[in-house]
Amino acid sequence: MEKWVYNFGSGETEGDATMRELLGGKGANLAEMSQIGLPVPPGFSISTEVCTYYYDHERSYPERLATEVDAAITAVETKTGLKFADPENPLLLSVRSGSRASMPGMMDTVLNLGLNMDVVKGLAAKTGDKRFAWDSYRRFIQMYSDVVLGVDHGLFEDALEQKKDTRGIYDDVDLTGDDLEALVGEYLAIVEEETDAPFPSSPREQLWGAIGAVFDSWMNQRAITYRRLNNIPASWGTAVNVQSMVFGNMGDDCATGVAFTRNPSTGENMFYGEFLVNAQGEDVVAGIRTPRNLTREERMASGNEELSMEEEMPEVFQQLAETRTILEKHYRDMQDIEFTIQQGRLYMLQTRNGKRTAEAALRMAVEMAEEGLITRDEAILRVDASSLDQLLHPALDPSAEKTMFLRGLPASPGAASGKVVLTADKAEEMALAGHNVILARVETSPEDIHALHAASGILTARGGMTSHAAVVARGMGRACVCGAGDVRIDDDAAQVHIGNQTVAAGDIITIDGGTGEVFLGAVPTIQPQLSGAFGTLIGWADEARRMNIRANAETPLDAKTARDFGAEGIGLSRTEHMFFDTDRIIAMREMIMASDTAGREKALAKLLPMQRDDFAELFRIMAGLPVTIRLLDPPLHEFLPHSAEDLADVAEAAGVSVRVAKERSLKLAENNPMLGHRGCRLAITYPEICAMQARAIFEAAAVVQKEGADAIMAEIMVPLAATAREVEICRKIIDDTAKAVEAETGVTFTYMVGTMIELPRASLVADQIAEEAEFFSFGTNDMTQTSLGISRDDAGQFLRDYAEADIYPVDPFVSIDIEGVGALVAIGAERGRKTRPNIKLGICGEHGGDPASIDFFEEVGLDYVSCSPFRVPVARLAAAQAAIKAKSST
Amino acid sequence: MEKWVYNFGSGETEGDATMRELLGGKGANLAEMSQIGLPVPPGFSISTEVCTYYYDHERSYPERLATEVDAAITAVETKTGLKFADPENPLLLSVRSGSRASMPGMMDTVLNLGLNMDVVKGLAAKTGDKRFAWDSYRRFIQMYSDVVLGVDHGLFEDALEQKKDTRGIYDDVDLTGDDLEALVGEYLAIVEEETDAPFPSSPREQLWGAIGAVFDSWMNQRAITYRRLNNIPASWGTAVNVQSMVFGNMGDDCATGVAFTRNPSTGENMFYGEFLVNAQGEDVVAGIRTPRNLTREERMASGNEELSMEEEMPEVFQQLAETRTILEKHYRDMQDIEFTIQQGRLYMLQTRNGKRTAEAALRMAVEMAEEGLITRDEAILRVDASSLDQLLHPALDPSAEKTMFLRGLPASPGAASGKVVLTADKAEEMALAGHNVILARVETSPEDIHALHAASGILTARGGMTSHAAVVARGMGRACVCGAGDVRIDDDAAQVHIGNQTVAAGDIITIDGGTGEVFLGAVPTIQPQLSGAFGTLIGWADEARRMNIRANAETPLDAKTARDFGAEGIGLSRTEHMFFDTDRIIAMREMIMASDTAGREKALAKLLPMQRDDFAELFRIMAGLPVTIRLLDPPLHEFLPHSAEDLADVAEAAGVSVRVAKERSLKLAENNPMLGHRGCRLAITYPEICAMQARAIFEAAAVVQKEGADAIMAEIMVPLAATAREVEICRKIIDDTAKAVEAETGVTFTYMVGTMIELPRASLVADQIAEEAEFFSFGTNDMTQTSLGISRDDAGQFLRDYAEADIYPVDPFVSIDIEGVGALVAIGAERGRKTRPNIKLGICGEHGGDPASIDFFEEVGLDYVSCSPFRVPVARLAAAQAAIKAKSST
Repeated sequence: MEKWVYNFGSGETEGDATMRELLGGKGANLAEMSQIGLPVPPGFSISTEVCTYYYDHERSYPERLATEVDAAITAVETKTGLKFADPENPLLLSVRSGSRASMPGMMDTVLNLGLNMDVVKGLAAKTGDKRFAWDSYRRFIQMYSDVVLGVDHGLFEDALEQKKDTRGIYDDVDLTGDDLEALVGEYLAIVEEETDAPFPSSPREQLWGAIGAVFDSWMNQRAITYRRLNNIPASWGTAVNVQSMVFGNMGDDCATGVAFTRNPSTGENMFYGEFLVNAQGEDVVAGIRTPRNLTREERMASGNEELSMEEEMPEVFQQLAETRTILEKHYRDMQDIEFTIQQGRLYMLQTRNGKRTAEAALRMAVEMAEEGLITRDEAILRVDASSLDQLLHPALDPSAEKTMFLRGLPASPGAASGKVVLTADKAEEMALAGHNVILARVETSPEDIHALHAASGILTARGGMTSHAAVVARGMGRACVCGAGDVRIDDDAAQVHIGNQTVAAGDIITIDGGTGEVFLGAVPTIQPQLSGAFGTLIGWADEARRMNIRANAETPLDAKTARDFGAEGIGLSRTEHMFFDTDRIIAMREMIMASDTAGREKALAKLLPMQRDDFAELFRIMAGLPVTIRLLDPPLHEFLPHSAEDLADVAEAAGVSVRVAKERSLKLAENNPMLGHRGCRLAITYPEICAMQARAIFEAAAVVQKEGADAIMAEIMVPLAATAREVEICRKIIDDTAKAVEAETGVTFTYMVGTMIELPRASLVADQIAEEAEFFSFGTNDMTQTSLGISRDDAGQFLRDYAEADIYPVDPFVSIDIEGVGALVAIGAERGRKTRPNIKLGICGEHGGDPASIDFFEEVGLDYVSCSPFRVPVARLAAAQAAIKAKSST
Repeated sequence: MEKWVYNFGSGETEGDATMRELLGGKGANLAEMSQIGLPVPPGFSISTEVCTYYYDHERSYPERLATEVDAAITAVETKTGLKFADPENPLLLSVRSGSRASMPGMMDTVLNLGLNMDVVKGLAAKTGDKRFAWDSYRRFIQMYSDVVLGVDHGLFEDALEQKKDTRGIYDDVDLTGDDLEALVGEYLAIVEEETDAPFPSSPREQLWGAIGAVFDSWMNQRAITYRRLNNIPASWGTAVNVQSMVFGNMGDDCATGVAFTRNPSTGENMFYGEFLVNAQGEDVVAGIRTPRNLTREERMASGNEELSMEEEMPEVFQQLAETRTILEKHYRDMQDIEFTIQQGRLYMLQTRNGKRTAEAALRMAVEMAEEGLITRDEAILRVDASSLDQLLHPALDPSAEKTMFLRGLPASPGAASGKVVLTADKAEEMALAGHNVILARVETSPEDIHALHAASGILTARGGMTSHAAVVARGMGRACVCGAGDVRIDDDAAQVHIGNQTVAAGDIITIDGGTGEVFLGAVPTIQPQLSGAFGTLIGWADEARRMNIRANAETPLDAKTARDFGAEGIGLSRTEHMFFDTDRIIAMREMIMASDTAGREKALAKLLPMQRDDFAELFRIMAGLPVTIRLLDPPLHEFLPHSAEDLADVAEAAGVSVRVAKERSLKLAENNPMLGHRGCRLAITYPEICAMQARAIFEAAAVVQKEGADAIMAEIMVPLAATAREVEICRKIIDDTAKAVEAETGVTFTYMVGTMIELPRASLVADQIAEEAEFFSFGTNDMTQTSLGISRDDAGQFLRDYAEADIYPVDPFVSIDIEGVGALVAIGAERGRKTRPNIKLGICGEHGGDPASIDFFEEVGLDYVSCSPFRVPVARLAAAQAAIKAKSST
């Protein structure tokens, strides 16, 4: 028989910390604290399965739920010696949501549930504190009406303010019991006025109202948005925690507070928190009264005059300090706790792993490992690999005032301020003149590469996390906010419109590529400080990981950055990026405009020495490490200008008539360039391009080897193959060229020819392809586009709806879609190894820098991942985490 | 040890008809005829494996080949009692190519090999016929020089003509032995002049020269082109057949001829052929002398005066007629034979299954089955299913004179003449005015649908076999030639340019969609005659097949055509085609321009009754048969006009400003529409569209069921799903709508909700999708695009190179790519059945009408294929063939 309700507190406890899927985080930890003997007010959790049932059955409950809740209340009554709905000896309850993942603010808490006109009087009589009783009732009505009945809480606040005005007092605490009794009358009238029904007086009805409100809140807009932003599936559901009330507001021997077992900002090993005497928990949060420090040390540091808890309540502080130690030892992590002191007695209301800054996480992990609290492996697992990005880029000064006016996708981390410019050339010009610029564009294309480089930050209206702007920005370490769909960029007027707001070219804005936020004006930024903990942890990670980490890089700067960040080779050098420089694009276009092989060869001969120099430089920088060079990949029309004017210039430069240039351009235009004449299809139709690139690679290798370098480890990569035959044809061109250059130079080369596996067909016939390819590099960007049938440039139109509808809860361009794309990677790896057991397997899509994807690549057993230079530290840590997880799961 | 050479003739024969892969068709059949005791001049075949070796080893031969050839020549010498290179008793040889598939004209034959100055004199002495000997040598020099040495044969012909002029004679036969001896001297001088070397006098050198020339001819341009056009892989290679010469030109008791065992044009069961007395085989082909009829009956029918072979050589004719019967009984098929009569003795030089017209193939298959020569299953297999297309469409009159000026892709069969028009509206206007029109466009889009319908034929410059124009034309049974890349269409000048030729709008052209040819002027066409044999065979096929055949249809006309051709339901009704009518497109655009759900719903409400009527009509026509309706599939921008002017009209009609219309249009534009916001993604983001369509379907079903029809079998299809969740969401909308309409109308519906499986991911997670989908329809068009990463609209740029390079020997949009796309279909079918064992599986891509693909779908065990209405008979026959093949392979 299914069980829907789990008791906790005072010995008899049915759950523990391992049951967070069923009980939610809060419920599981309340049970766990009970299990280890900490003082937890008794209560029970209604499991997340009830939530699932509720939504699967048109918001109704399982049959036996009511019976189980009744039994659980009886258990709480027994443990507390109180009785629910009994005016003589009333049990009051709190009702809180609690899902598997923390979702702050999803639903407000309901406290003091169980009060009505009879019970409030009984409570006054029993405690001898009329003010306390009526204040509790007042608070309850306000919370319940707000949270459960949907009454605007402003109405209650107005009534309270008016009451204080009438009575001529300033502070809530100066209201008497009688004042509050009168106020309760007004509150009840407000509820009846607003809801056309009296405030529910039956505690049982109150309880079910609150339970229903918690479940309903799971699907409110706030929760949906929060889940979307945090990749939490809607299917998890929330639990409901019902707990007996303890009161921090029954007098001056009462208090309530929150604390962290270590400093969550810096990670320093010190007890850190705040408390309020004679208050309920909500008062701490509400900020009506200023909370006091927990420890004397903290008070001295912050210069507060009011005594700390350590000084004011030394005994119960001592108990709390011991609890801190118990909890850290037990949970082996920094805890974020809530407590209440009722008449000198400590009650624990919550514990959970505390949120922390990236910097703090790093320091705590390293220090806890050094203290022996956790192992090195645990320390490695403790730090969110993605968060390292924060430590490598400038961040907004958290104390700065700022006006957000737009939110887009957090496409490349870091914060940057600068003047808005709308054109690529202007960006470069202004940057050269010493200005910081933010390039704002509908979208960017490879033509803009110099502008992306010149800009401090990039803002685009279209395109997702793997759009051109995003990929290039991450590669260059530039801050980037993409897909800010509400932006209209008016090039003619040189203005950017967002709703009614307008930013003119030259105005200063600030973007935060880590959050996707855009601010008016310059917001001060702070430079990252890499602590010693960073070096320690990444060192441990390097020892723990199995996969190699390479970088995607083609410029000398990128390659140097990659090496500095610890890359163990280049996993993807996109040779086409080398063709966009001003002097090269002319030869490239001449090649495109040529009407025959001879014409193309003539133009290619001009490109050859430039490519050779590029490769030589890469080989020098990456000396001793493998360098994967991908043959020309994009369709040729990407190298042509868009405007008729520019095309005329091209025609002139290429020595053809404007009509011929136009016709050639039209002929090259494609309906779906992503699926067009690109990749190795270029090498098949224009073998001379492949031959030129191969020659540039080998001539460069000869030059550098003659300089005395170690043998160059070139891995030449054929893009977009779907058949073994394509690789075979390209391989022959490459091998023939290698032989020719060896004969010409007398140098012997070590190199491999391999292929991208980026089409579904390629994975399916990987056994055949491995006959020709010595290595595979999975191109999971394109494979995501083809397997899912989603163009990453166009996905913005629906991917958000898809996330909200739980179709792709996580953007498949950010984290690999394991069931689809992942399955193809696994098939490709397995079939490739069947033919060539030692085939080298890597991945060079954007997923190479994503920790969740890296986990998967570890499972599949790839040899390396390759990512943007700035993601290399993230990948090093993530690969270590993946290896540790894989080890422990076997 | 490998064996390279196989002997045949006179008893000792090492091959047979089953060995065509190794020996080529000609060699295998020469061996087979020897095996069954027919008189075949002895010889040997050098196997196709030598050809493969030759190209794998830089055009060199296997080591033991020379030894084996020498042994084989010795064997021929023993059998014939002659001796190669021996002037006293010379053995002369013929050398012919012969590949697995017939490749007529790939290489000319070399006859009389083995002659030189010594041998020719010996031959003259031995035969006592100087003229014969020197004529043989003359012919040999000319053939060998042309085929092996590459000397222009015109030079020899000039010398011959000059000789005749000098001698004042008209006919070759009047040249004397001395004339010919002199001519040989001139020929030898020509060769030495042209090649800078004397003509080879060593018979052995001659032989190896001829063998090499045959192998080299495998890769000549003619052969490459022929293979590409006929989908013959280059890897098959050719065999070389070396055979002892027999002479039809040794006197009047000699002859040579060719014959068909039945009439290859009509299929009639009569002996049919022609012969020449005192001639070599080449003379029949060359057409210098007019051949005579084989039978008296034929001669009478054609009114020839010269005696037939039956009359002139009754004895040897009788032997030939018996051979005819033996061969038909043995091969159980119509044979195309070559024979030579040397001094009254019959020799068989070739037999092969005869080529025949589609009409003849049909008649022969049915009659042979009725004669008991073959089984019904064999009769079914005997007819090329694709050829039925020829029988259903007008064809060019083969006797008409015509001027071809262009060749494109044969995109939709049939021939049509008409005036060239360049715009859609003009096409409709002129067609309404009673003209036949050929619509000539760069490419077509859904906006042009009315013009495609109005035109007799369509010619496009871009797009492949599955481009919009091609697909629509096949669906409508219109002739279509696509991707005629050399065409430039100049809309401004209203002219079509091809190279230097210009066709103006209004000029008449003729297109043949079955061959891709385009002709100037009107070429007369002949209407197809469906014989009784067609009905008989298709009836047998229906009994033999397992799969159902459905049609892709959305208009009432298409649906009626489909039923007439025997479709057993509609497998794909593309609802978007219904939105392009003039009155509907306005409402559609209004919907697209709406800024919110309410606005969209208002516009959709206008479309609802129109869709309802469409569906009602389809349901009526297909009464009792299943109708698969696909929800809206194309991206919304396809419904918007391209020009700024038209967009302004749309803005006005939709009641929005031009600026808003422009912005909306820009926002909808996509880089890769194929991978964009389309398919069920529309239903997810705009559920109201899905709801409207579902309502139209069910309201239509209610109307038609109330009219008294059988329960409508609607199968509602969700396009482009990649996840189970998408189907679940659409399914809920559809089910809810069904319930609502049931409640409103009191009618109960039988329907299924299923999905297209057209993305690789969908196949991989088909087990999950089958939880939600009651049927799958594999959309192999889109799955080919995504799996192979090839946009069918853009593939024209490289697919021809890909065919030539043997990467995709067959266009994967015409015949399914079994290893890639096929693997995904198989995975999808298997995983779908795992979840839902009785899931209905079909296919509705263009492959549904392709016999090779249908074979594969039978293997996978699909329940049905769906194709264009005009392909239904093809599919019925192909499905039967597939079922028979499957049965016999188990």
